Amino acid sequence: MRDTILRTIEGVHEQVAQSDGGALADDIPALTRADPDHFGIVMVTADGRRYEVGDVQVPFTVQSVSKAFTYGMALHAHGEAAVAQRVGVEPSGEAFNSISLDPSTGRPRNPMINAGAIAVTALIPELSARPRFATILDAFSRYAGRELDWDREVFASESATGFRNRAIANLLRSRGMIGDPVDGIVEDYFRQCAIEVTCADLGVMAATLANSGVNPITGDRLLDDANVERVLAVMSTCGMYDASGTWVYEVGLPAKSGVSGGVVGVLPGQFGIAAFSPRVDARGNSVRGVAACRKLSSAFDLHLLRAPSLSTHTIRRSYRLSEAASSHSRPDVDHAVLGARGASVLIVELQGDLFAISIERLAHEVVSTAAQISTYIVDLKHTGAIDRSTGRLLRALATDLVADGKQLLIADPGGVLDPSVLAGIEVTVTASLDLATLICEQQLLAAAGRPDPESTRVELDAFELTRHLTDHDRARLLPRFTERRYAAGSVIIAQGDDADEVFLLAEGVAREVRRRPDSGISERMADLYPGVTFGELGLLNQARRTTTLLAATDVRCFVLTRAQLMQLRSTDHLVYTRIVENLLVGAAERLRRTSQETAMLRG
Amino acid sequence: MRDTILRTIEGVHEQVAQSDGGALADDIPALTRADPDHFGIVMVTADGRRYEVGDVQVPFTVQSVSKAFTYGMALHAHGEAAVAQRVGVEPSGEAFNSISLDPSTGRPRNPMINAGAIAVTALIPELSARPRFATILDAFSRYAGRELDWDREVFASESATGFRNRAIANLLRSRGMIGDPVDGIVEDYFRQCAIEVTCADLGVMAATLANSGVNPITGDRLLDDANVERVLAVMSTCGMYDASGTWVYEVGLPAKSGVSGGVVGVLPGQFGIAAFSPRVDARGNSVRGVAACRKLSSAFDLHLLRAPSLSTHTIRRSYRLSEAASSHSRPDVDHAVLGARGASVLIVELQGDLFAISIERLAHEVVSTAAQISTYIVDLKHTGAIDRSTGRLLRALATDLVADGKQLLIADPGGVLDPSVLAGIEVTVTASLDLATLICEQQLLAAAGRPDPESTRVELDAFELTRHLTDHDRARLLPRFTERRYAAGSVIIAQGDDADEVFLLAEGVAREVRRRPDSGISERMADLYPGVTFGELGLLNQARRTTTLLAATDVRCFVLTRAQLMQLRSTDHLVYTRIVENLLVGAAERLRRTSQETAMLRG
Repeated sequence: MRDTILRTIEGVHEQVAQSDGGALADDIPALTRADPDHFGIVMVTADGRRYEVGDVQVPFTVQSVSKAFTYGMALHAHGEAAVAQRVGVEPSGEAFNSISLDPSTGRPRNPMINAGAIAVTALIPELSARPRFATILDAFSRYAGRELDWDREVFASESATGFRNRAIANLLRSRGMIGDPVDGIVEDYFRQCAIEVTCADLGVMAATLANSGVNPITGDRLLDDANVERVLAVMSTCGMYDASGTWVYEVGLPAKSGVSGGVVGVLPGQFGIAAFSPRVDARGNSVRGVAACRKLSSAFDLHLLRAPSLSTHTIRRSYRLSEAASSHSRPDVDHAVLGARGASVLIVELQGDLFAISIERLAHEVVSTAAQISTYIVDLKHTGAIDRSTGRLLRALATDLVADGKQLLIADPGGVLDPSVLAGIEVTVTASLDLATLICEQQLLAAAGRPDPESTRVELDAFELTRHLTDHDRARLLPRFTERRYAAGSVIIAQGDDADEVFLLAEGVAREVRRRPDSGISERMADLYPGVTFGELGLLNQARRTTTLLAATDVRCFVLTRAQLMQLRSTDHLVYTRIVENLLVGAAERLRRTSQETAMLRG
Repeated sequence: MRDTILRTIEGVHEQVAQSDGGALADDIPALTRADPDHFGIVMVTADGRRYEVGDVQVPFTVQSVSKAFTYGMALHAHGEAAVAQRVGVEPSGEAFNSISLDPSTGRPRNPMINAGAIAVTALIPELSARPRFATILDAFSRYAGRELDWDREVFASESATGFRNRAIANLLRSRGMIGDPVDGIVEDYFRQCAIEVTCADLGVMAATLANSGVNPITGDRLLDDANVERVLAVMSTCGMYDASGTWVYEVGLPAKSGVSGGVVGVLPGQFGIAAFSPRVDARGNSVRGVAACRKLSSAFDLHLLRAPSLSTHTIRRSYRLSEAASSHSRPDVDHAVLGARGASVLIVELQGDLFAISIERLAHEVVSTAAQISTYIVDLKHTGAIDRSTGRLLRALATDLVADGKQLLIADPGGVLDPSVLAGIEVTVTASLDLATLICEQQLLAAAGRPDPESTRVELDAFELTRHLTDHDRARLLPRFTERRYAAGSVIIAQGDDADEVFLLAEGVAREVRRRPDSGISERMADLYPGVTFGELGLLNQARRTTTLLAATDVRCFVLTRAQLMQLRSTDHLVYTRIVENLLVGAAERLRRTSQETAMLRG
C-alpha cells in the first residue's frame, strides 16, 4: 500500500517545486555550475527510518551547513567554556559575511556567521599525525554514515576569490581569536565548505542531532547530549541568519542553511530534515529549502514548542506484587503467602526516555504509597536514555528511599542505567523485572517461614496430586511413579513431543523456555520449584508439548506415564478419579491466578 | 518519607537565597514598599502537582509578567494575522521601556517590551457590557485558578508617574497602532500590571502554558495549542529582554520576568516554574529569580532542546489477534478458528501524546505488515491529546488504508479523537479495544461459516462436557441437568457465593463483571457465548465464586449441581470420571490459551 508519510512529503515537494524564486549564488564562481532546478527533501526519524523525495542523491558542497557540525566538534574537543572564549552565541543582526566582531569582547558574535565559523575551524585540533581537515572530513563522514570526499574545484574557486573571508580571518588574528598560520586556517575552512554531500547525507546528519548525537543508522556517537543542545540552541537563534525571532515563531526548528542550496532542520527526539535546491535568496538561504521547512513544519507540526505531555505517560503501569507475581510456579501454599504479603511490594514500570518529570512522577508515586509499601521495584525495560540530571534525581530518590528504610530494586534489562548513578547506595539492580520480583518473592516466603525452595526436597506423598487418598490407595498409586534425575542443563520436556507424562518436581529448579518465533533464541518463561506438578495438561487429550522444560539445576522428579495412568484407570478406578479430580483442582487454581493477572496486564 | 523533588527545590532555594544582589525597583514608587528578602520558588507539573518552597503566598503586583498572558489573549481574540499588524516578534536589542518602533513597519518590535505590551492591551476587546480590564482580570483569574484582585495603590503610583509609558502610547497612537482613548488604554495597561498575584499563582499560570493552554488544576482551557506555541516562541526570544541567544543557550526555557520580582518559566509538556524575589538587576529581572531559573534548569535538566525520543516509544505493543484474542469465552472450535484466522488482524496499541512521529511510526508498522494483514485495530486507550496536524496525518493514513482495501478499527475509550478527523472515511470507532477485537472475531467466525453466537442454540448433548460418553451413559447423565432461564440483566452467579453449580450456556450471552476495588464500579470482564461451560472451577474444592456473572441477553442454561454430581460419583462412577476428565481437558485448553496471552502481555 501507499506510504502515507512519503505521500505527504511528496505533496510538499510538488507544491514547493512550483516556485522558482531566487538565483544561483555567485559568491563562489564554481557554484554557478549547479542545475538550478534540482530539488530534494529528506526526513529521517530519530531512530533511523528515511523518507526521500526528489533529487536526494545529487552531490553538492555543504558550505555553511558545515558550521553547525564543526561548532559541535569544537565543543566536544575543548568544552563549552574554552569555546566561549572565541565565539559568542548571540544573533548578530548582520549579514553572514559581515567583517565585524563584538566590540566589547572581540569575539565573533556567533558560530553561524563566517567570522565565528572560521574561529571554530581554527579550534579543531591539528595534530602532527592528523591534519585538521582530515579530522573534519572524518567527523562529517561519521555524521553522514558514509565516506565523504571534497570538491577540489569548488575549493580552488573559493580559495581564489575568498578575499572577504581572508579579511575576516586576519581581523580574527589581530584580536587573538585564531592562531597561525592564518592562511592555513582559511584554506581548511574553504575545504570544510567544499565537502561534498547529498540531500540524503544531510538528512542523516540532521537526524544524528535529532537523536542526541548518535547517528541512528550506524549507532555511532558523535556528540554528547549537552553539546547537541548547545549546537541546536545556536541554530535556533542564529542558524537562518537574521530574523531569528520570526524563525522561532513561525517554523520553530533549529536549522542551518548553506549558500549552495542545502538546509538542515532538527526536531529533537523526532526528525532530522534536509532540503536541497540551489536557488537562494538575498540572505543566502535556499528559497525552496526554506519553503520546504516551513511546509513540513506545518504539515507535520514540527514545532519545538509543541511538546508531548510527558508527565501523564511516564508510568506505564504500577501494581502490587500480590496482583501479578513473577511468572514462576510454586506450590499453592507459597502462592497463597505471596498473595497475602505481596501487597507490600509495589512494581512501577516506567516508559519512554527518562526526564526530570519522569522521576517527579515516580517520586510522587513513592511518596503517596510509602505508608503501605516496604519494597519498590522500578522496571526500566520500556525506557530509553537516562541523562545526567535524571540520573542525579534518581540517585536522590534512591537515597531518600533507603534512608526511610525502604528496599529498592531496579530492573534494567537494556542497561540504560550508568552504574555510577547508584554507586554507594544499597540498591539491587537486576537484569529483568522477573528476577527482581523473584528476589522479593523469596524474601517474602522466607519471612513467612517457608523453606528455601532451592534446598527443599518434597516427598512423593506430599504432593497435592495425592490429596484425599487413603493409605491403601496411596500404596496402590505410589509404586507406579518412577524417580528420574536430570543433570543441570538437560532437557526434561521438549516442545512438540507427545505429552505423555506428568512430573512431580521433588528437588531442584525446572525452567520453562520458549523459542522466539522471530529470532529462534530461547528465552526463560518461568522457573518451577519443588512441590510443583507439571506436564499434566496434555495428558488426557493426547496433546503435544507446547513448551520446552530444562533442568536449571540438578533435578529430581517423580514421573507417572500416561500408560501407567490409563492402567490405573482400569485397575483402580477410584484412585484414578481422585487423581483427575486433584489435577482439575490444581488447574482451576492456576486458571484463577492467571485470569486475575491477565485482567491486570490488559488494563 | 521525604519528598525528593521538594528537597531538590529546597536545595536550590537555599543556595540562591545566599545572594542579595540587585535592588528594589524604583520605577514605580509603591514597589519600594516590598520586603527585599522575600523569596519563593514554585514548580507545577503539566498535570497539576505543585511543589512550593519559601515565600510563595506573599502577594505582589504581576507587572511585566502579565505581557505574556495578554499577548495570548490578543491572539485568541483576533488570530495571529491581525495581531501581527500591531506587533512584531523580533528581539529588540533595546531596553524594555525604549520609546521606539520598527522604522519599516511602525510596529513595536515585540509584545514583551512596553510598547508592544501596550499595543496588545489595546487589542483586548472592550465591550459596552464588559470593560477591557474586567476581561483581563477575569482571564488572569482563570489562569491562576482563583479570583485575583488588583492593587489600587500601585496602580495610582504608576499612573501618577508613568510618563514614559504615556509617551510610548502616544507614539503608538501617532502610528495608528492603537486607537482611542490613549489615556484609557494606558490606564488599563497600568491596572493589568497592578494585578496582585503570589508566586503560587504564577506557578499555576506557567503550568497552564506548559499544559498546552489548559489550567491543570481547574481543567479550564484558556488558549489553544497553536497560540500557546506563539506565546512561548516570543517568550523564548524576547522574554528576558536582551541577550536572548544566551538565554536560549544557557537556560533554554521560554520565560518572562517583571520588575516587581516575579519570573515565570515554561517547559512545554512538563513543568511551569515561578520564582519571586523583589531585588532586580539593571535590566529589571529579579536577581534571585533568574538564578533560580538557571539552577532549576540545570538540576532538573529543563532545557527545551533536550527532547525525548518519541519515535521509539510511541507503540506500546503490537500483536496479532491470534496471539491475544478478546477476553471472551467461546466453544473451543471457535477459539481454534480465531487462532488460525486471527493472524490477519493486527492490533497496535499507541501510547503518549500523539505527534507526527507517532503517526509515522504507525504508518511504518502498517506499510511493513500490509502483505499479511487485512484488518488493523489501533488502540488509543493510552494516548493523550491529538493535535490538528496529527489528526490530518491520521486521516491521510486511514484514507490510504481504506483505498488499499484494508479494514481499520480505532478503539478510543477516552474520546481523544475528534470525530471530524475521520469524517467520510469508512472507519469503525469503538469505545474499547475489547469491542473492536470482538467485532473482528465475529467477522472471522462468520467468514469461517460458524453460526452467529447470538442466535445459536446449543443442545445439551453437544457440549464438550458430554464428550466420550456412550449413549447409555449419556442417558444416565442428561436427566440430572436442570434447564434454567435468566432474564436479561439478572444475576446468574454472584461473587462470594458457594461455587456449587456448573453451567452449560445453551442460548444467549452471559457477562462476567468485576467490581473495581477502588471505585466500586462494576466493569465488564468478558462475554460468554453459547457452547461455553462455566462455573466448574470451584466445584470440587468447595471454593467461593470470584466473579459475578449476569445475563447480558435472555439466557438459557443447563445446570448441574454439586449434589447431583456427587450423587453421580457414587452411583455412576464411570460417567462421573468422564465428566471430570472432560472438565480437566477444557481447563487445560483454557490454561494454554491464557498463559500464551499472559506471556505476550507481560512482554
